[in-house]
Formats: sequence, C-alpha cells, structure tokens
Amino acid sequence: MKNFSFIENGSTTSTPGFKAAGVTAGFKRSGAPDFALLFSEVPANAAGVFTTCRFAAAPVRYCKEILAKGGKLQAVSVNSGIANACTGKPGLEASRKTAALAAAKLGIAPDAVAVASTGRIGVQMDMALIEKALDLAVPQLSSDGGNDAARAIMTTDTVPKAVAAKLEINGKTVTIGAMTKGAGMINPGMAGLHATMLCFITTDADIDKDVLAGMLEENAQNSFNRITVDGDMSTNDTVLIFANGVSGVKIAAGTQDEADFKAALLEVMKNLAHRMVKDGEGSTKLVTIEVVNARSVEDAKMAAESVANSLLCKTAWFGNDPNWGRIAAALGYSGAVFDPDKCDISIDGVPVMTQGGDAGTPESVAAEVVKKDEFTIRCDFNDGDSNYWVWSSDVSYEYVKINADYHT
Amino acid sequence: MKNFSFIENGSTTSTPGFKAAGVTAGFKRSGAPDFALLFSEVPANAAGVFTTCRFAAAPVRYCKEILAKGGKLQAVSVNSGIANACTGKPGLEASRKTAALAAAKLGIAPDAVAVASTGRIGVQMDMALIEKALDLAVPQLSSDGGNDAARAIMTTDTVPKAVAAKLEINGKTVTIGAMTKGAGMINPGMAGLHATMLCFITTDADIDKDVLAGMLEENAQNSFNRITVDGDMSTNDTVLIFANGVSGVKIAAGTQDEADFKAALLEVMKNLAHRMVKDGEGSTKLVTIEVVNARSVEDAKMAAESVANSLLCKTAWFGNDPNWGRIAAALGYSGAVFDPDKCDISIDGVPVMTQGGDAGTPESVAAEVVKKDEFTIRCDFNDGDSNYWVWSSDVSYEYVKINADYHT
Repeated sequence: MKNFSFIENGSTTSTPGFKAAGVTAGFKRSGAPDFALLFSEVPANAAGVFTTCRFAAAPVRYCKEILAKGGKLQAVSVNSGIANACTGKPGLEASRKTAALAAAKLGIAPDAVAVASTGRIGVQMDMALIEKALDLAVPQLSSDGGNDAARAIMTTDTVPKAVAAKLEINGKTVTIGAMTKGAGMINPGMAGLHATMLCFITTDADIDKDVLAGMLEENAQNSFNRITVDGDMSTNDTVLIFANGVSGVKIAAGTQDEADFKAALLEVMKNLAHRMVKDGEGSTKLVTIEVVNARSVEDAKMAAESVANSLLCKTAWFGNDPNWGRIAAALGYSGAVFDPDKCDISIDGVPVMTQGGDAGTPESVAAEVVKKDEFTIRCDFNDGDSNYWVWSSDVSYEYVKINADYHT
Repeated sequence: MKNFSFIENGSTTSTPGFKAAGVTAGFKRSGAPDFALLFSEVPANAAGVFTTCRFAAAPVRYCKEILAKGGKLQAVSVNSGIANACTGKPGLEASRKTAALAAAKLGIAPDAVAVASTGRIGVQMDMALIEKALDLAVPQLSSDGGNDAARAIMTTDTVPKAVAAKLEINGKTVTIGAMTKGAGMINPGMAGLHATMLCFITTDADIDKDVLAGMLEENAQNSFNRITVDGDMSTNDTVLIFANGVSGVKIAAGTQDEADFKAALLEVMKNLAHRMVKDGEGSTKLVTIEVVNARSVEDAKMAAESVANSLLCKTAWFGNDPNWGRIAAALGYSGAVFDPDKCDISIDGVPVMTQGGDAGTPESVAAEVVKKDEFTIRCDFNDGDSNYWVWSSDVSYEYVKINADYHT
C-alpha cells in the first residue's frame, strides 16, 4: 500500500461523490436519531455479505434480490428501531416499498436502492415513518453527513463508529469510507458474515462488482468474522460496499493495485471490527485469542472460538482472574485435535501453562496482566504450523443488565 | 416398571450393601466437607461415562484405565477442592496412589478403587490431605452416610443432591441410589457426557458390566446430556455406576426386566439432572426447550441446543422478557434445516410466533408466562416428525458474580 493513512474524523462521505444524512423519524421511543440515508451521485458497483440466519430479515432478502439482478446501486435506506425480521410477505413488501419511495424521492431507479433495518424483531414496518424519514433525510443529504448517518444507525452502541482512509494508486488518491453499528449479538463462526451488525462502505475506486464481492467476502472473514461478544448471530447482519468510480482509478483483478486496495479495505474493516468488539454490550476488555502451531487452520479456529465464546473464561476476565484452567478446558472441549501434553498458554507473554501443566507463574503476576484493558492469550499447540486468531471481550454485570432490560 | 417409587431422603446408601462417608480434610479453604468415600461390601460390576474434553483430568484417565481392565470395583474416593486436571504425569500418579492408599485402608484390591476429583485446575494433588481424608473417612463409613457424602462432593452447588428409588422385579425389590454435584460449566452437545458434574450411582441388582455400560450411556444421553447452564464442559465430568448384586435379582440383556430397570435408572438420573439445572449458578428459572416436527433428530437437537445456549435468550428470560425474536434468531443460526415460514413458537401453550411471524399475543400475556419459575418453549417446525428437548436456565447478575469471583 502506498501512502495509506486514516482520515481524521472520516466517514462514508469522506469519499468523493457520496452524500449522507441522519435524522429522527420516530422509530425509537427515545427520540434519538433513527434513520440514515446514504447516496452516491452516480450509480455505483455494489456487493454485500449477509447473515446466514435462516430467519433472514426482509431487508436482507430484498438486498440479495436486487444485488442478484446485477445492476448498479445508488443509495441505501437504513432505519433503526424496527428490524423487519420475522414479518413474512408483508415485511418483504415493506422493504420493496421503502426502496421504491426512496428512489422516487431521489429521482433514481427503484432497483438502485438497498434497504437495511435493525431493531425489534417481529414488528411490521411502519411505512408512515419511512415516508416521514425520507422526507426529512433527502433534503439533508450532504457531503459531510457521514457522521450523522453513523449516529442514526446505532441501537445499543454507546458510540457511533465511522472511519475513512486513503491510499495512492497510480499516482492518484483513492478513498474508502465506512460506518458500522453493532455491539451485542456478535459472533464469528458462520459462513459469510458473523455479527449483529450493519456496515456500509463507500469508495471512489472503479471496481468490477465481482471483484468487489470477492474482496468483501474475504476481508469480512478476516475482520468482522473474528469478533465475538456473546455467541449469538442476528437476523439482519448486512455489509454493503459501493464503488462509484469517481476517482477514475480502475482496479483490475489480479493486479498489485487490487492487492493494495484490498489491504486498505481490510484495514478499514478491521478498524471498525476492533471498535465494535470494544463497544460490546457492557464489556470492559478486548481480548485477543491466538491459537498457533495447530494441525490445521480448522483446528486452530475451533479452539480459538471455543475460548472466545466460553462464558466461564469471559466472566473470569471480567473478574481479573487469569484462570488458565478455564482456557485449557475450553480448548479441550472445542473439538480441535491436539496433544494436551504439548500445549503452552501465555497471556501477553507471561507463561501460565507449559506442556499441559502449571507454568509456575505466581497467580498475582498473571492477574496483573489480565487487569489490563487489552491483552492477548496465546495458545501454542506445538503440534503443526496452522494459526488463527479472534477478538473477544469479557462479560460483565452490565451485559446481563442491558440484555435483560432491552426488549429487542 | 412395577411399583416404582422414590425413597424419602434417599441416597447412595439406601441401596443394600453400600456404605458412605463425607468428611472435612482441608481441600477447601472454607472448612466445608470436602472428601467422600463410597464403598460396596462386595465387589460390584461397574461402568462409567466421562468428559470428552481433551484435557481430561488425571482421575478421569485413571478411572478409564481401571474400567478397561474389566474387573469389579468396590469403592470410589472423591475429593472436592482440587481437580487434579492439567497436572501431567505427577497428577496421574497421584490418582493411582490415592486408589492404592484407599485400597490398603479398606483391605481391598487397588484396582477395585475408582477416583474422582473436582475443584481448582492446574494444582497438584495434596497427598497428605488424601491420607488424612482416608483416615477420617474409613472409620466413618456407614449405611446411612449417603447424604454426608453428597454434601462433601459439592463445590458451587447450593444444595446437596442425593436420591434413591426402588422397583419390583420378579417379586423382589431392587434399589437404585445416587448422588451428584454440578452447577456451573454444564453443557450438552458433546458425545458421551456433557456436564461439569460428578455422579455416583449404586444398585443392588445383578447386572453384567457391558449391559450396565450400555444403559448408563444411553440414559446419560437422555438426562445429563439434556441440561445446559453455560455452554462450558469440564475436564473432570464423571458418572460411575456400581451394581453389587446383593438383591439376588439378575437383570439379563434383552429382557423386560432390563427395560424396567433401565427406565427406573433413567428416572433417577433425570431427577438429578433436573435438580442440577435448577441449581445452576445464579439461575432463577428452569426452561424446557422442545423442538418438534423437525426433518431429523439432528436438526431438532441443533435447534434446541442453540436456543438453550443463547446468551441473549437466557438474559431475556432473566428479565421476564418473552422476546420470541431472540428465540427465532437462535433457531435460525443453529444450522438446523427448516422452513422459517412454517415455524410456530409457543411458551407454555401461549403462541408467540405463527408461521414465521408474530402470533398476535399481547406481549404482556406472554410476559406473565415467562415470569414463572419453570416454563416450556415449544418450537414446531411443521416440517417432519423428529423431536428433541433440552433443559436450560436463565443467566442472572448472580451468575456473573459467582464466576467472576470464584477462582477455580
């Protein structure tokens, strides 16, 4: 990557040719902003990755439908407060109508509008609110509206999450902007995408939609797919990318340009993934789990995700308890094949288990490491050369409170 | 089953020919009883099911070793406070030495003594305490010591769990007694046994050890394997059964007697499983998840366990929130194959989802049901004829507190 850098206060609208708005339409009882509109001045190539949940929400089904048609997209309408999931045919009709209304008000083709929703499951969409939202948002679309949009898509998030970065390709600047929401229900381990999250990415590069789709899919596996807060997956997970070509920089498949752009896109996606796991509901710590020298990537992945999702490990971290026995137990029941008598575990370099037994580090020393806001648990199987890592978080009283009280 | 009934205040020593003791040796800092000895006056046929965790603890490895030799067993030595897991060769040697010491003090063959441990992982066994424990326990062995033994094997359990039942076979009374410990780390879904638990079962029936092993394995799948508290599995899970034949009732393979005995044994095991899930760390509710009319038992099982282990569902139950959307999401990402548009969900008979959408029941009505201490969530896929059920519990503030503070 040449001259890659993050843009201060960057967002989806840091990318030339994109406008956005965030408004309050009334989907949320709280009165907080709850509708975002993202718009490209010219039709853009687009790609998406979505939840693999069998109860995929209506807007997810609708997005897949229009992406399958192969045309360009020019906007996405996003509401928070009603998920439009488990709403049957009327739900799908509501997503379709939302796109048509937005298209009419924006003066573009109906098939050029994607739709995303997040919020309460099982409630039919309120189309009067959608109309009101569009009437408010369309006139407010602006080339510095990205941060407003990022705020409007939040649900249990405590902070809005927007980012942008630029890099140089063939002497020209290419920009990538993005916003995401997601805090609870975050889980890796399913094909495609694995988090309760919405993410919208903009770029002014000129990229064929199939190339774009391949990059997005692979990068999602190495960013959003590596985070876990509670092991649940949502009905509405959606990541969409729009490439409007305004920079005039063509990124062709199989070139160094493609590799550079993909690496830059991964940095943007990892930045958001990192912030999502740090914003996990009530979590106080970011824990990286690395499993190294496993017999296969699959073994390393099963083992890392088992530790990342272990409620006993996550509550121990909250309690500043290094408790390597719980880590060992989670590795042991993960299904991964390895030799327990060869396994070493260290926390930020401090050995806690050596060859399947106590490393002899005083508990007070290991406890100091676990008190930190961020630390890395490294599990070395000494049994092969395959590696995998995931990001996890702790589980606090606050997590239980948020999820016992928040009626999604 | 003829004349099956539970025995009031029953325990492992309700079964003729068995003695037990529970003493305080000093494994626990709290001064609570922490060592149990169970003894059969005559050598007994025995069988066991164990954790499938790759870091199986030393006593688990030792029990498998002596069971594989095929001889009869006559005692089990159980300590709580030190798990003797992740302790390598010295750990295995400690289990072996524990059995030899017990055998010497009891005047029986070393290979006739099983060993079980529960408690902190990664700490080597304190053999001086084992000696002290045996010196205290052997003289205290008595035919009404079953409840003392049940108390001595507890860790985070809030109540001891012992039970006994009798039934009539060929005009004679056969007794089954049992005790269990287990509250946290309880999880179904792995082959064999799936709970952080110790369970010891006694019977005076005369049953071949292979028949006994088959019954125990199958019954474990339909009792202990159906409970889940937090999705974790322990390094030390052990279920052992001893059949000393003292009743003179021979139970032969393939007979009605076998079916009757097996059914009675299942009742005893389900009784303990039910009480373990009710004693789940900090849990306030027992929730039965039924998945019916699925395409296969495997689909029904994946779906039921997904709901049972969903942290979002479990915190919602704690908050008295019927939240069928979270149930639907957990069914949807479970990996089970089903048609979401045919799926119905009800809670204690109150419909909450019909054909993949809102059933129209006011939330306040469903919330009343979820307020109860026990309720059943029935998920009907209307898509086949296979069924599965599991028991789950809620997750409370108390759960987090116990597991953040308890340094296992």
